[in-house]
Amino acid sequence: MTAQVIDGKAFAATMRGKIASHVARLKEVHHVTPGLAVILVGQDPASEVYVRNKNKSTVEVGMNSYEHKLPADTSEADLYALIDQLNADPAVHGILCQFPVPDHLSERDIVARIDPAKDVDGLHVLNAGLLASGQRAMVSCTPLGCLMLLRDQLGNLSGKNAVVIGRSNLVGKPVAQLLLRDSCTVTIAHSRTANIEEVVRGADIVVAAVGRAEMVKGDWIKKGAVVIDVGINRIPAPERGEGKTRLVGDVDYASAAEVAGAITPVPGGVGPMTIACLLANTVTACCRANGFPEPEGLTA
Amino acid sequence: MTAQVIDGKAFAATMRGKIASHVARLKEVHHVTPGLAVILVGQDPASEVYVRNKNKSTVEVGMNSYEHKLPADTSEADLYALIDQLNADPAVHGILCQFPVPDHLSERDIVARIDPAKDVDGLHVLNAGLLASGQRAMVSCTPLGCLMLLRDQLGNLSGKNAVVIGRSNLVGKPVAQLLLRDSCTVTIAHSRTANIEEVVRGADIVVAAVGRAEMVKGDWIKKGAVVIDVGINRIPAPERGEGKTRLVGDVDYASAAEVAGAITPVPGGVGPMTIACLLANTVTACCRANGFPEPEGLTA
Ligand SMILES: NC(=O)c1ccc[n+]([C@@H]2O[C@H](COP(=O)([O-])OP(=O)(O)OC[C@H]3O[C@@H](n4cnc5c(N)ncnc54)[C@H](OP(=O)(O)O)[C@@H]3O)[C@@H](O)[C@H]2O)c1
Ligand SMILES: NC(=O)c1ccc[n+]([C@@H]2O[C@H](COP(=O)([O-])OP(=O)(O)OC[C@H]3O[C@@H](n4cnc5c(N)ncnc54)[C@H](OP(=O)(O)O)[C@@H]3O)[C@@H](O)[C@H]2O)c1
Repeated sequence: MTAQVIDGKAFAATMRGKIASHVARLKEVHHVTPGLAVILVGQDPASEVYVRNKNKSTVEVGMNSYEHKLPADTSEADLYALIDQLNADPAVHGILCQFPVPDHLSERDIVARIDPAKDVDGLHVLNAGLLASGQRAMVSCTPLGCLMLLRDQLGNLSGKNAVVIGRSNLVGKPVAQLLLRDSCTVTIAHSRTANIEEVVRGADIVVAAVGRAEMVKGDWIKKGAVVIDVGINRIPAPERGEGKTRLVGDVDYASAAEVAGAITPVPGGVGPMTIACLLANTVTACCRANGFPEPEGLTA
Repeated sequence: MTAQVIDGKAFAATMRGKIASHVARLKEVHHVTPGLAVILVGQDPASEVYVRNKNKSTVEVGMNSYEHKLPADTSEADLYALIDQLNADPAVHGILCQFPVPDHLSERDIVARIDPAKDVDGLHVLNAGLLASGQRAMVSCTPLGCLMLLRDQLGNLSGKNAVVIGRSNLVGKPVAQLLLRDSCTVTIAHSRTANIEEVVRGADIVVAAVGRAEMVKGDWIKKGAVVIDVGINRIPAPERGEGKTRLVGDVDYASAAEVAGAITPVPGGVGPMTIACLLANTVTACCRANGFPEPEGLTA
């Protein structure tokens, strides 16, 4: 068996197209343009690339992008004053602060300062609570992306055995909540899990969010299972030349693709879904803020 | 094999003894008496019994109990005014509203009105979020009781396979969060779970919170597993006389006790832990409100 490749890049592109038409309709019918504000503190080069990409994608779907670049020594008070201002600004529907931030700032406190309704990264404790209680939440982007790929692949997820490897607040736990909400039987595995191969072998759906290059082997996978690989790990690739590296997931793609029914590649699987879901969340937040009906298929 | 009986009644009594000494110390050293306010709207007879028991238990451990009985036609505004007043009252460290409430009131909105720091029932969305994010929360009483019995029985829970049957916001989901926090590999099963017997058979720890009399049979249980039965179901007991009933759990005790290593009876297992944990939460809330060190062993 060779697994079907789940093309996250293509799926994300289709999603961005749908978002663009929703945005066009919001503008035309309601004269409202969704707006996303991105805050970057300091000059981390990787963060600058991410912020630039987010900005570009936001504008491409017709939304407003507000970039706020602050110096690395910005005081907590000044940062919070900006967040408060964005919270109060009706043109801003989503706010995110690019992490990591300099050490004198607290990521947790920054997230707590953002209006939960504008927390398009879905990191606010209140959004975690709404998700955990099955209420309408802002859902963090990578977990939402995993859910969308799975729904697209499998249709109804009800009754499937899902194993989520990893229990981070950012990925593992919200993925588990989303799959539970869609009525999977959900198992959460992590570094203390005994006989993890056995546990994974029981799964119709495997979501790996570990951060260990190619940890999940083909012989851990049940025949026909759907495998979502969230991991992004950079490993040496001497075959490409001295000092070269390449990206791999948490799943050993070659062996897993022999057994799985479908699998996301790395790169090109979950990765491209994250920004698409950020845009989706911004549209959702805009609709909720204005009391418009929420477009179908953009949220959990 | 005949399972060890986990005596929740005795455990809860010991816990109440510990709470009483904590309370005595708080009074002596800090001149602070923990206080629990209980609101009852209307005259539901079962609720009146529960409230009376909570009041009695609160006073028995030396804490202050504030009962607020409101007529069934109390307006939302009047109820919220009372909650606001209790939120602001430094003598009140815990607030709970006995449910169900009359139909013109919303349980969700009532809980949302209570200061999360005083939400000793652990029902506030913010507390669900704190629990889900692994932060310091007020944890709801029945799940906390399950955790305490399991820790007492097994010591370290890390690496155990736990299956939680039921995914309610009140029991199943918080139990799963607590077991995950204690590093169990956690599976959440529910009404859509396929082959539930098989799923349960993999568990070192089974927590049943379903509400179906004696659903979990002995042949679902792995030899030596620890079984926590949260269910409270009243069934006909003609053998006791015409029209008589008796309480049973969600586990078929007789057959499960043949296989399990340890099991909670119904009644006398999880049930008595719930009020003990309510008292524990009130002491915890009092310590947090005053910046006192939290007593050991009273929370998750
Ligand atoms: N595609 C995207 O857009 C995207 C977004 C976010 C993250 N990621 C990637 O996803 C991966 C996970 O991210 P994260 O933020 O969730 O990481 P994280 O916070 O480091 O969490 C990793 C989780 O994996 C578990 N784990 C570690 N070693 C393990 C082992 N040997 N066996 C089983 N479980 C193990 C850890 O268990 P314990 O809790 O027991 O320590 C932890 O729960 C990373 O590669 C990251 O780069 C990708
Ligand atoms: N000891 C105490 O102090 C205490 C406190 C609270 C509750 N309880 C008792 O605990 C029990 C559960 O309470 P709850 O509030 O969690 O109940 P609930 O809100 O009714 O939830 C029941 C859960 O059981 C699941 N379920 C129903 N039928 C099932 C089946 N055939 N197989 C597998 N799962 C099934 C449901 O799944 P779906 O989500 O798919 O519908 C649901 O998640 C009740 O008996 C209650 O009286 C005791």
